[in-house]
Amino acid sequence: MKKKTLPLSRVYGLLEPGPVVLVTTVQKGKANVMTMSWHTMMDFEPPLVGCVISVNNFSFAALKTTKECVINIPAANLAKQVVGVGNCSGSKLDKFEKFSLTPLQASLVAPPLIAECFANLECKVIDTRMVNRYNLFVLEVLKAWIEPGTKNPRTLHHLGRGAFMVAGRTIKMASKMA
Amino acid sequence: MKKKTLPLSRVYGLLEPGPVVLVTTVQKGKANVMTMSWHTMMDFEPPLVGCVISVNNFSFAALKTTKECVINIPAANLAKQVVGVGNCSGSKLDKFEKFSLTPLQASLVAPPLIAECFANLECKVIDTRMVNRYNLFVLEVLKAWIEPGTKNPRTLHHLGRGAFMVAGRTIKMASKMA
Repeated sequence: MKKKTLPLSRVYGLLEPGPVVLVTTVQKGKANVMTMSWHTMMDFEPPLVGCVISVNNFSFAALKTTKECVINIPAANLAKQVVGVGNCSGSKLDKFEKFSLTPLQASLVAPPLIAECFANLECKVIDTRMVNRYNLFVLEVLKAWIEPGTKNPRTLHHLGRGAFMVAGRTIKMASKMA
Repeated sequence: MKKKTLPLSRVYGLLEPGPVVLVTTVQKGKANVMTMSWHTMMDFEPPLVGCVISVNNFSFAALKTTKECVINIPAANLAKQVVGVGNCSGSKLDKFEKFSLTPLQASLVAPPLIAECFANLECKVIDTRMVNRYNLFVLEVLKAWIEPGTKNPRTLHHLGRGAFMVAGRTIKMASKMA
């Protein structure tokens, strides 16, 4: 499905609820993907995202060196791939091939979008000062893509020890919270 | 309901799925509470939590000065209070009274637990170096409380613009992800 651009001012609504995401990187021409849950919004526009990626992940070096990634947001139909990607290392295999994930060319960064994810955020690393102490990267979202018609996506939320919460119903409140 | 201690190694499973939380602080003997969604786990044990609290929040000064807070996790039955707390400032009123929230004495910090929340995390600020640039506080969870029998809590997840996702069903996967 052809994706459309999402205004950068709307990105926070995708990440703030805490979905598990798939992060793509590329190094020396080889793309990789990892599963991540430790992220937070840090600013609205341009959207800044803080994410903690352990030095034990194969993606850590690629992100630190190339300073680019794509945050891909999967829905529950990809649960098996999400867990599979999280349970193996890109140092040993091509995870796109193993899990039948389709890489698409991004517009502003080298790492690929994952076609099967309903939203994709092209990011660059803007601050690495907290990497040594906390493995915390500060990312700026440069470009955001979303499948047209996406409404109440069934995102996955990691509860630990093999359990995931699947996004439930949406309620509307008279909120002024941004 | 009397709460029980939750081992610190289990705290990540509460915050990683991205629930909206209520943060309590106390300054000059006056307790306050704010609504927050911008947080991430940063380490497992001791549990470290990064959270972004805008300088525009009345709670900001209290947290920066006293270096203590409690992260209280509400379920969907508290949705009205969660939104109400987020839509007004503690500079002008007593939010505990206005929203009928019951403060309970914490064991290791001065800010109160909120009795109506199913989990409460007593925290101290351990790093303020990212506060000036990003409003990012690094917290260490010192003590965690949970209502006995809590299972699949219906947490709230902020989608922006007045919408919240309510936690749906839980699925089990053969995950090795911590």
